[in-house]
Order: sequence, then structure tokens, then C-alpha cells
Amino acid sequence: MTARAVSELRVLSLSGGVGGAKLARGLSAVVEPGKQHVLVNTGDDFEHLGLTICPDIDTLLYTLGGVSDTQRGWGRASESWQMLETLGELGGDTWFQLGDRDLATHLLRSARLAAGSDLLQVTDELASALGIPDRIHPMSADTVATTVHASEGDLPFQHYFVREQCRPEVNGFSFRGIDRATPNPEVMAMLAARSFDAIVVCPSNPFVSIDPILRLPGLYQALLDSGVPVTLVSPIVAGLAIKGPAAKMMSELGMPVTALGVAQHYHKSYPGLVKYFVLDDSDATLAPEMARLGMEAVVLPTVMRTDDDKRALAAGILELYRD
Amino acid sequence: MTARAVSELRVLSLSGGVGGAKLARGLSAVVEPGKQHVLVNTGDDFEHLGLTICPDIDTLLYTLGGVSDTQRGWGRASESWQMLETLGELGGDTWFQLGDRDLATHLLRSARLAAGSDLLQVTDELASALGIPDRIHPMSADTVATTVHASEGDLPFQHYFVREQCRPEVNGFSFRGIDRATPNPEVMAMLAARSFDAIVVCPSNPFVSIDPILRLPGLYQALLDSGVPVTLVSPIVAGLAIKGPAAKMMSELGMPVTALGVAQHYHKSYPGLVKYFVLDDSDATLAPEMARLGMEAVVLPTVMRTDDDKRALAAGILELYRD
Repeated sequence: MTARAVSELRVLSLSGGVGGAKLARGLSAVVEPGKQHVLVNTGDDFEHLGLTICPDIDTLLYTLGGVSDTQRGWGRASESWQMLETLGELGGDTWFQLGDRDLATHLLRSARLAAGSDLLQVTDELASALGIPDRIHPMSADTVATTVHASEGDLPFQHYFVREQCRPEVNGFSFRGIDRATPNPEVMAMLAARSFDAIVVCPSNPFVSIDPILRLPGLYQALLDSGVPVTLVSPIVAGLAIKGPAAKMMSELGMPVTALGVAQHYHKSYPGLVKYFVLDDSDATLAPEMARLGMEAVVLPTVMRTDDDKRALAAGILELYRD
Repeated sequence: MTARAVSELRVLSLSGGVGGAKLARGLSAVVEPGKQHVLVNTGDDFEHLGLTICPDIDTLLYTLGGVSDTQRGWGRASESWQMLETLGELGGDTWFQLGDRDLATHLLRSARLAAGSDLLQVTDELASALGIPDRIHPMSADTVATTVHASEGDLPFQHYFVREQCRPEVNGFSFRGIDRATPNPEVMAMLAARSFDAIVVCPSNPFVSIDPILRLPGLYQALLDSGVPVTLVSPIVAGLAIKGPAAKMMSELGMPVTALGVAQHYHKSYPGLVKYFVLDDSDATLAPEMARLGMEAVVLPTVMRTDDDKRALAAGILELYRD
């Protein structure tokens, strides 16, 4: 086998929202246009004010399209809130932050879905309009709805995440509709055709971003059967979640709040899936533990503050696939 | 009968959009809070991007709520267009001008309708949120859709009015669903109970704003049976429409483009309905013609530029009902 340039690798990345999108942006910068396919969680999707809102897909669209607000950490740049302010004055529900620019995505998507397109087609249209070279693949065109089982009862994901700001103590998750959902057929076909050189699980929440993807019927097996080594980037660094409630969830679920806890979760839930487990420099001492779980620890700087950080992490990961 | 103060009169006004809303605002300022009931055309309502948009109701809401943009002449003050600009960038339809603040109304209404409220309830909610003392009554909770019959084919009203900017030559109008539509039951009950002292047809387009109201099953008869004299304010002044396509339509329909043409339309379509026909000062010479149609000409300044103009016209009209 001849050594290939990293830029020529065909990459499948699995992603939730903000953390995953950062690495996807790094991968996008490192590989040639069109070489990255991002398979995105849709378990967070929900209906609000009659709109179909897909927070993780939108985060990928805005991040890869270069229109995300990097200061705020979510949503679109140059955003305004006139609709939301007026909605509040009219007595409407304002717990979900809908920006004026962001609304265009939701309105267009909802209208296209109502006119008969499916989520895969609509996402392609939006990505194309934003000039994104990568393919953004919703994990399924079917509805899968994440429910958070909490001490105070069950909550739809966005109610837990946004309205309750992750305050309730969680004891588990379920994904309504997942047993009947068809995994993205294009990605499944590409896996079967061995069209990928690298598979990367981005540093996203294991429970509410990656589990919904991996639990789609046949997807885990298809990843195993593809013969491509899977790299997973720990979303927990030095015992903290870089973004979001992953660390809090692990604690409430009685798991060690470390990268090792993450590795144990994947080892138990998806045996044999992860070959390379990417640890942050600050967690290098955990490397020997990974070997016992059958994973190869790879130590890299995983905290992505700048676009350079993103590119460097992406390049470091893809080096694993050069030959 | 003792002479009553104008402010005590219970007024039913019939209105389309901008022109009608101006007089409704004048009437609102002249009568005591809660005394004006505005019956509003809904034939212009349409679905766009999944939203239920009611242009005439919204114009009444914004005008009576004191949040309309009086410079632009339509929509909300302090409006912005971030959603629309972004929608254009994403390849969506931008022919209908949806402002960011305006969107809150459409989103809230559409969500409430989807949740099972009817248009009458939702309109009451919105009017109440805007602190409007008057009652705004959609002409019907049922869908009535104005179709413009034009030389180049049939057009839904908003396509004619906004997308085509009234360019097509019209030869008639029809109102899909009107035969099965129930006129606003509260207004019908108030007419039957003789709860109004004055009825005013605002200076709105006869064909696409007032006809849809008056052609609702039973409404014209209910107005006659109420025993209340009806005042109509000419939307044509000195041969011109103050606002909108009324003059152009009259010309294309082969009618004289004058207040007399308007009077003839009402005389023919709704015999005996109009008692007082309000002519602008500039059309005073047409007064004798009105008598021949069985109407009493009332000459007043009808061009409403300022809130004072609106109040003065409203007060002038209500003087007719003082005893």
C-alpha cells in the first residue's frame, strides 16, 4: 500500500452539536472538498411553534458554512432577536432562543418538509446554499426523539437541555422511534461499499449525541463490517466536559467522570468498535487503561479554541490512517 | 330620544387593510374603550412558509395597537429584515415581505391554530396582548380565499397583490369557500340583538376587502335587519384610490373611476344598504348623484394623513348618529 496524503482520505465523522462540529470543521479544512461525510444526530430535533428544529444539523451547517457565532458558541453570527422579543410581548413561549437569521433555516426546512421533501434532501439543499463542501447527513430521515429520564420524570430533550438548563438529575435516556428508523441510506451504502478510509467519532456527548446514531438498527454492525478503524475523541478532558452536560450526566449515572469512563461506556455498549481513543495531553496518564479495553490510546491536544487547533487535531487523527 | 355623546356610540366598522384601519383608529380614539367592533376581511389570508398570514387582521392589530409603521404604510414599526435576508441567501421565497417582528404574530397565530384554537380566539389573544381596547373580529373563522380573475389567468390574492404588484388586468373576483363560511357569530348575535348604534364601512377596496365580508351568507341581510343606518366612506377620492389597486380595478372592470362608481357598485350589489355616502370635499360636486341612488351624500375631509385627520373623520361620521 502506498502512503496517501492525509488530504485524500475519505472521512466519515459522527457528530452531535457544538463539540463535534468543531472537529468536523477541522477535518473539513484538512481533507479535499467533498471528502468528509458527517453523520449527524437528529435525536435532539423537535417541533416548536410549528417549526421543525434540528439543533445539531444546524450547528454543522453554520459551523461548516462559516456563519456560526464563535463567541456565543452556538447559533448564527450577526444574529438578532427581534422576533423573539416581539413574541414575548405577545405572550408566546420564549424559552427556546430563536434568532431572526436562524429562523430562516427553520422556516425553509419546515416548508420543504411540508411540501414533501425529506430531511436528507432539505439538509443537502441548505448545505449547498451555504457553500459547504462537506456532506452533512442526518442520521435518519425518520423521527427519533430523545427522552431524558430524570429524577423528576421524563423530559423531551430540548426541555431538559434548554428550558431546564440540564438541572434535573438524569438516570437514563431513550430514543423514541429508533427501532423503526432507517439509518441514512447513503451512508449505509457507502459503508457497505467500503467508501471510507477513516471513521471518526467526534468529541460529542456519548449518551445524547452518539448513542442515538450508533443505536440505529444496523449502523453499529455496518461500522464494524466496513473494516475501517474507528477513532473516538474523548469529550471529557481532565474530568470536565468541554461543552454541555456530559460530565454531569456521567456523575449522575454513577460513572467515573474521566476519559476512562467514556472508554468504558463505548467498550461495554459497542464492543470492538473503537480502535483509537484520543486522549487529551492532560489525560495522558490514562493511556495504559485504554489498552486493557482493547483500545489504542492516542495522546493529542483535543481542546479546540481556534481554527488552527481544529485543523491540528484533525490532521493528528488522520495521520493514524496514512498507511 | 335624548341626544347621546358621540363617545357613547357602539360602532360596528367593516374594514380591509390600511385604509380601513386608519378610520378604525380614528373611531377608536373617538368612542369609549370597547365600543368599537371591527369586522375584518380575511379573504386575503394565505399560507406561506407554513405560516397562516392574515394581512388585514394584522394591519388592524398593528394600527389599533399603535405599533404600525406609519412611514412605510404597512407592517410594524422598528421592523428588521434579518430573517428575510437570510432566507434569500438560503434560496427561499422572498416575494412576501416578512419582517422579523411581524413574524412573531404569524408564528404565534399558526402555532395556536395548530393547537386547536380558531382564528377568532387567536385574534382576541393578540389584540389583548397589544392592549387594544377595540374588538377585532375576523369576518369568519372559516377559510375564504379571494381569487383574482385576470387576463393571464386566475391568481391567489397575495400573488396578484404582492408578487405581481397588481400588474395583471382583472376581470373579476371570487371567494373560495364563502358559501360554506359562517359569518363571525359574535357580530351576528350583536346585530340580531341590535347592539350597535352606528355601522361604518371604512374606505377599503370594495371588491377584495368589503365584498368578501358582505357576501358571507346572511351578513348583508343581518345588517339591513339591524335597523342601523350604514355609512360608507368612499375609497376613491378625486378619481384616485388613496391606497391600493381599487382605482385600477374599477377601470379594468369598466366602471367610472369616481366615488359615484363606488356608490353604483354598492347600490347594485347591496340595494338599500348604504344610507350615508361620505364624499371627500374634493368630490362634493358628486353629491346630487348620490341622492338618485337613494343615498345621502355627506361631504367631509376623508384623506387621513395624521391621527387628527382620522379622529376628525370619525367624529364627523358619528355626528350623523347622535340622535
